Amino acid sequence: MSFQAPKGTFDWLPPRSERVLAVREALVAPLRLAGYGYVETPVFEDTELFKRGVGESTDVVSKEMYTFPDRAGRSLTLRPEGTASVVRAVLQHNLHTGQLPVKLWYSGSQFRYERAQKGRYRHFWQVGAEALGSEDPALDAELIVLGARGFASLGLRQVRLLVNSLGDKNCRPAYRAALQEFLRGLDLDEDTRARIEINPLRVLDDKRPEVQAQLTGAPLVVDHLCAACKSYHEEVRSLLTASGVAFEDDPRLVRGLDYYTRTTFEFVHGGLGSQSAVGGGGRYDGLSEMLGGPPLPSVGWALGVDRTYLAMEAEGLLDEAAPGRVQVYGVPLGDDARRRMFLLVSELREAGISADMAFGGKGLKGAMKGADRSGARFALILGERDLAAEAVQLKDLTTAEQTEVPLAQVADVLKGKVQ
Amino acid sequence: MSFQAPKGTFDWLPPRSERVLAVREALVAPLRLAGYGYVETPVFEDTELFKRGVGESTDVVSKEMYTFPDRAGRSLTLRPEGTASVVRAVLQHNLHTGQLPVKLWYSGSQFRYERAQKGRYRHFWQVGAEALGSEDPALDAELIVLGARGFASLGLRQVRLLVNSLGDKNCRPAYRAALQEFLRGLDLDEDTRARIEINPLRVLDDKRPEVQAQLTGAPLVVDHLCAACKSYHEEVRSLLTASGVAFEDDPRLVRGLDYYTRTTFEFVHGGLGSQSAVGGGGRYDGLSEMLGGPPLPSVGWALGVDRTYLAMEAEGLLDEAAPGRVQVYGVPLGDDARRRMFLLVSELREAGISADMAFGGKGLKGAMKGADRSGARFALILGERDLAAEAVQLKDLTTAEQTEVPLAQVADVLKGKVQ
Repeated sequence: MSFQAPKGTFDWLPPRSERVLAVREALVAPLRLAGYGYVETPVFEDTELFKRGVGESTDVVSKEMYTFPDRAGRSLTLRPEGTASVVRAVLQHNLHTGQLPVKLWYSGSQFRYERAQKGRYRHFWQVGAEALGSEDPALDAELIVLGARGFASLGLRQVRLLVNSLGDKNCRPAYRAALQEFLRGLDLDEDTRARIEINPLRVLDDKRPEVQAQLTGAPLVVDHLCAACKSYHEEVRSLLTASGVAFEDDPRLVRGLDYYTRTTFEFVHGGLGSQSAVGGGGRYDGLSEMLGGPPLPSVGWALGVDRTYLAMEAEGLLDEAAPGRVQVYGVPLGDDARRRMFLLVSELREAGISADMAFGGKGLKGAMKGADRSGARFALILGERDLAAEAVQLKDLTTAEQTEVPLAQVADVLKGKVQ
Repeated sequence: MSFQAPKGTFDWLPPRSERVLAVREALVAPLRLAGYGYVETPVFEDTELFKRGVGESTDVVSKEMYTFPDRAGRSLTLRPEGTASVVRAVLQHNLHTGQLPVKLWYSGSQFRYERAQKGRYRHFWQVGAEALGSEDPALDAELIVLGARGFASLGLRQVRLLVNSLGDKNCRPAYRAALQEFLRGLDLDEDTRARIEINPLRVLDDKRPEVQAQLTGAPLVVDHLCAACKSYHEEVRSLLTASGVAFEDDPRLVRGLDYYTRTTFEFVHGGLGSQSAVGGGGRYDGLSEMLGGPPLPSVGWALGVDRTYLAMEAEGLLDEAAPGRVQVYGVPLGDDARRRMFLLVSELREAGISADMAFGGKGLKGAMKGADRSGARFALILGERDLAAEAVQLKDLTTAEQTEVPLAQVADVLKGKVQ
């Protein structure tokens, strides 16, 4: 028997893993330039944090969390999303008592026990950003622009941005009541009828055609926004337009977590099968208070690193051949040559040239095969006779051209060739 | 009430978090230059993987694992170390049937339910490297050199390297028997006597003075190495010497995991309290077979990112003031100025200049305080009159010198000043 990764999880391996690291860096780069600082929180938290912060009625909390007791009986949960942890850290360490907004980014795995399918795994990798402690439409717009810039910097052209406003504690209750009244008149199954009473907005998100068909005339939150929410939303939209970031108003856009207020948005892509979101977020002005903190109006997003990679694949952006693992590969023949090659390769690395060599006592043929497979542009062949002459054979693996170079000059000669 | 990070865990927050990211990058850089490729495995694995791969008799497996069932009843465990997961991934994806050695690096959190103390947490962040599928002393030496280079590149001068050989399946049984015989004659408590029968090497690692006092005459594995292990170890030592990497022979060095054979090493630092290891590793030639795979002689290490940070702190390497969060900070006065500043700041970021601005409708005083706290070198002040003149006031926050710059030229002017 042999072991497998747990169901619904996966490994990133070279050369794909190198590209997914580059995807992560590209999504983070705009955040760094905008003064967002890095935060790393533990992979698990007190279970109660997510029950309160994400909402007991959500699928995430009721069906999808990995929850377990530690050896002292504390209930812990692998984080199903990043925002509740970040707000917890900000409150615990009193960051909210300093300059506002507090701008933070994070990157890491999150965990939901979902049905495994393409683009949906039980652990997934996100880059997230949160701006905490300011109610300012420019901050909502800033985050959306930074997300869009990240996708654009990867060459993605088919990411669509959907925006909506969910209103606030002043106008949402009336909308909620109007929506409930409408939904109660429809022909729905028992589970969905129960959802009407707990979280009617989520019914709008039901993907089943028989449900969608009945939702045509449903009241829309945009038609129920109070004046403050309306002008806030207009300002976000107008800053996006001024920034040249294309978006579509989606009056049906709601999100699966309970804490969103006002601005809500999603980045979607057509190449991901049934899961179209590559990222999303919104404003969550009430979350801090739900967690026992002071009022701390905030906005944030999370972008899926794995899904962004899949979107790039769908757009044919990953077609070029994988880059070489190293630039130079050492082929030593004999024990003394092996020892000298070890030092030579080490010297090249110190000079910033990536280099590997044949290990395990391989002969010329096996070692040259290793050179080919490494993707190196140059091989350094060192036999006993070369060693006596204090020189090495430098072979260009593209042209098969071979020249002798004194050992003492190899690093300098290669520096000119590999840059 | 408010929430706290779970006991024994911690958050990394700015500005320390930025430095710990830099520490991680510095430890990884030598690996990239040596052709190690990135691997990311799930945070949890089948529990049986660690029972078999780490060893049921170890403290890690018997006392320190976070183990829990998923919703389908599978027993999962948060990874307590990285090697077993990497070997599992290599076998599952058949990487071992290609070019050998397979060279991989990883970075991420690991989890052990230990007594919380300085430098020892229940989650910890490691950078790890594994070279799988070759039995070659040069590979052991390469990894040790790459680890030492990583520490040195951070300016650390007090990291000591301890090396030992634990023998192999040919010579270790005889040594084990000799050690058991010696230990059975000592005055030890019942738990320790039980350990003699299961894993006598671990008794050598017992830190209690009353135990250490009795171990003076214990047989040492170096005196029992077979000829093959002896010459292998000599070759590793001589390559380290030739590479200029200082080390100390430590004939008592054993490690807490069951899978090590031959080369064993630890990087230790005096500034970390009772936990002195900042990294360590060794050869694990039998691990693949323990996991149901073919023979795959391998060597690897893991370096503690959090502990390396603490070691740098102990050596006073983190004393300089934190760098600014951004280079430029925008101070808009009035609504129209705010909208224009939003676009200006966005333009600066696109030009590679890090920039932030005051959010939340702050007045001049509050906004200038934000500029100071951001650590920016320059403030851009934009009032209604400036806006009418299509210009902005550029203030050097170090010298308080202020000049007017046309809006269209701000990015160009700043590019010259912040590089």
